[in-house]
Amino acid sequence: MLKDSFYPPQRTLMGPGPSDIHPRVLQALSRPTIGHLDPCFIGMMDEVKQLLKYAFVTENEVTLAVSAPGSAGMEACFVNLIEPGEKVIVCINGVFGQRMAENVIRCGGQLINVEDEWCQPVSLEKLQATLEQHPDTTAVACVHAETSTGVKSDIEAICQIAKQHDCLTIVDTVTSLGGIPLYVDRWDIDAVYSGSQKCLSCVPGLSPVSFSSNAVDKIKSRKTKVQSWFLDQTLVMEYWGNKAARTYHHTAPVNALYALHEALLMLKKEGLEQAWQRHAMMHNRLYQGLTDLGIKFLVDEQHRLPQLNLIAIPEGIDDVAFRNHLLRHYNLEVGAAIGGLAGKAWRIGLMGYAAKAENVALCLKAFEETLNMMRQ
Amino acid sequence: MLKDSFYPPQRTLMGPGPSDIHPRVLQALSRPTIGHLDPCFIGMMDEVKQLLKYAFVTENEVTLAVSAPGSAGMEACFVNLIEPGEKVIVCINGVFGQRMAENVIRCGGQLINVEDEWCQPVSLEKLQATLEQHPDTTAVACVHAETSTGVKSDIEAICQIAKQHDCLTIVDTVTSLGGIPLYVDRWDIDAVYSGSQKCLSCVPGLSPVSFSSNAVDKIKSRKTKVQSWFLDQTLVMEYWGNKAARTYHHTAPVNALYALHEALLMLKKEGLEQAWQRHAMMHNRLYQGLTDLGIKFLVDEQHRLPQLNLIAIPEGIDDVAFRNHLLRHYNLEVGAAIGGLAGKAWRIGLMGYAAKAENVALCLKAFEETLNMMRQ
Repeated sequence: MLKDSFYPPQRTLMGPGPSDIHPRVLQALSRPTIGHLDPCFIGMMDEVKQLLKYAFVTENEVTLAVSAPGSAGMEACFVNLIEPGEKVIVCINGVFGQRMAENVIRCGGQLINVEDEWCQPVSLEKLQATLEQHPDTTAVACVHAETSTGVKSDIEAICQIAKQHDCLTIVDTVTSLGGIPLYVDRWDIDAVYSGSQKCLSCVPGLSPVSFSSNAVDKIKSRKTKVQSWFLDQTLVMEYWGNKAARTYHHTAPVNALYALHEALLMLKKEGLEQAWQRHAMMHNRLYQGLTDLGIKFLVDEQHRLPQLNLIAIPEGIDDVAFRNHLLRHYNLEVGAAIGGLAGKAWRIGLMGYAAKAENVALCLKAFEETLNMMRQ
Repeated sequence: MLKDSFYPPQRTLMGPGPSDIHPRVLQALSRPTIGHLDPCFIGMMDEVKQLLKYAFVTENEVTLAVSAPGSAGMEACFVNLIEPGEKVIVCINGVFGQRMAENVIRCGGQLINVEDEWCQPVSLEKLQATLEQHPDTTAVACVHAETSTGVKSDIEAICQIAKQHDCLTIVDTVTSLGGIPLYVDRWDIDAVYSGSQKCLSCVPGLSPVSFSSNAVDKIKSRKTKVQSWFLDQTLVMEYWGNKAARTYHHTAPVNALYALHEALLMLKKEGLEQAWQRHAMMHNRLYQGLTDLGIKFLVDEQHRLPQLNLIAIPEGIDDVAFRNHLLRHYNLEVGAAIGGLAGKAWRIGLMGYAAKAENVALCLKAFEETLNMMRQ
């Protein structure tokens, strides 16, 4: 022990992320490391910025990848945009809405929750009513694609309501970016964060973010210092900003950014709309096949995410034993459910490179065989 | 543009980090991604923990890698250990001491600086006097190897003084871990952070940290919530802790951890003492060769780091033109100086895999030829 290199098994990743990664992206990842202030690297960072603008459908100048996972991207949005005492509405319909609320508390914000049932989208009526009750709200935060349930909320409508009340909008797109339609500028999103390891099919560890000019104005006019030095966007902007005047802030995760660059190139080559369509098509195949096996989808069709499918564990089937069997005998990972759904449901991801016919076929056959075996 | 994969040039990295990476580590990095809750991955995380204990020479149970660069590791130490209003002494003799002070302010701590000249180590007498003046100090923070100057401070003595005054000790070992003697337990360090991309020769993006049982007690008995959700060690400990009861916190940077595992295996195989000796030997060669070229080292021998060499820019030589020439004609990166030393000095790194005879030879010959050319 503690002498041998680690050779991971070759899994098919159909959980809630990380998702399967294309060999091109893994190759890019392992190219020789260069200095983070090397002119060649600065040029590549600039391309990553352009490619992220494409993926987010935004012209926002401040579009970059936070050098840490999605949870840090979430925190970057809150610590920069919320000052102590400010009133923030968080729409909660799953684990990641709860995490947003936790962030508001830790920034010293005044938290107002708009709560909906898990497996339901954010209610526009409740949001509207809460905003009328709290006219001094400064920001509205919500999750586009709730990774804990596979529910999609109507971000366009939510932002429209928030804007009517002069609020900044903060949106979690960790599981949506690259998988379903998302238009940052058109929908009036002020701060958005995502993750590298979901529908972008890049390695985990980076969080793409984008800030509107409204958000940047808010950050620049803060009365208090951002509580996190590492996530302070006034400093990070100078690092990712003007090529000529690059200011050292931290050491960027050089190789992970090679991988993100490659994953984004592949998305651009396929085309964003085409990628959205592919996710929808693969979801339809999965839905048809699992329904044929008698498995129930827990989210209504109109709010269902194609890239993350919450299904009920069939009666009499042991959650852990079933997932372990898939992992051991088919090298197939599907996700456990979390929070109140733990033990009652599974989450099947069809994200990025994993959203393909061979994965759906493997999943359907493995489910069929394993269910039959366990029912004998 | 925005169609081509990024192929970085093959550099020799002799700046302040990232350092050259062994091909074995890059290979490990690009192995197939598996789920961060996969039993195989959890086993590997456990090995990373054991290997980090070896590198830090500690038995601390809470020893792990923060899923972000060294600056986030620094912030993890401060936001967890310092509560608002607590008095903290920070010893400042360069950029990273300044950054620690910035962290204390952002945690709401009461900051007391002990300042020394750049290029000088932390003064034990000043620290002693300051502690006597401020007996209610709760923590003392300092940098072992100041990356901005190449100065080593006497951490053993600093911690001894701090302990006589019942203070927790927080130490930056970003540039020291793996390069010079460091004994976390023997020296009574309560919280220590480092970086993956310096003397460990791993890719940038991870920050090894370790917390003593004193530090863990302090964290567990906090009256206020840790201001950062992402860096809250009460949550992170559950993620890296007990294998049987792994609790989801964030998605670990799976592939970067493969690389860290491999880099630490290589360190263990070489042996920690042997790695320290190699850094010292390569420094001696570099020192001899550059001195022969008439180049002056700016740090006194007794405080000089072997792995980071601060040298004066020879009179009449243009800083940027010289470094650009090395990069363009020899693919050799050496570091600019920062802060008050910018434009006056260079920083030559001999870190981890880069601390080898062929790199020293290349550096010496490239310096000789370039200086001769520029003096013509």
